[in-house]
Amino acid sequence: MSIESMAKDFFNAVKEDRRDDYQAMWADNIVSLESGGGPMSRVEGREQLLEKHAWWEDNTEVHSTNMEGPYVIGDQFAVRYEMDVTMDGERSQMAETGVYTVRDGKIAEERFFYPS
Amino acid sequence: MSIESMAKDFFNAVKEDRRDDYQAMWADNIVSLESGGGPMSRVEGREQLLEKHAWWEDNTEVHSTNMEGPYVIGDQFAVRYEMDVTMDGERSQMAETGVYTVRDGKIAEERFFYPS
Repeated sequence: MSIESMAKDFFNAVKEDRRDDYQAMWADNIVSLESGGGPMSRVEGREQLLEKHAWWEDNTEVHSTNMEGPYVIGDQFAVRYEMDVTMDGERSQMAETGVYTVRDGKIAEERFFYPS
Repeated sequence: MSIESMAKDFFNAVKEDRRDDYQAMWADNIVSLESGGGPMSRVEGREQLLEKHAWWEDNTEVHSTNMEGPYVIGDQFAVRYEMDVTMDGERSQMAETGVYTVRDGKIAEERFFYPS
């Protein structure tokens, strides 16, 4: 599968919240990085990333999400996320760019750039 | 200089259009990549990148720019750009995320992810 096709499939699976589908695209040793330096700034491996997702589910209420992309360069693609979300009782508008690196047909790394 | 400091210096130099300052942060063999697959999708080296900037200057009128960032992860930082620009007589709102990779204290690579 071309990276363009894979990027579109991933984008649509995330957009439609088809978790099994987008998680199947993760490499088992996927590395997930975030700017900001918090405890979630580096997560390694499928199990840790599933825990991170569960934490997000448990601690946020997402009112709406806007996604743009995917934008492909070489072995990477980017997705722009804008979210209206309540966390710790505080509602805010968040925006971030996720940059995904594909190796051997799987997502080997994801990096989320956003204000800390 | 830490990458955080360098990223802020670069961000401010671009924002204030201090070209000598931000161009001094480029590695001589800087690689500049864009999504979209156009003729500018890969430019290599300081001279070609200066030519690309000159092309942009000659072919666009930028009415306003909003910049957010920089957001640092490891040896990379990202900047979000939103521009109100007229190109080929057509005015539009553009947005892109630039991801910069620092090596040996210089910007070795920049990648711009945006709609093609």
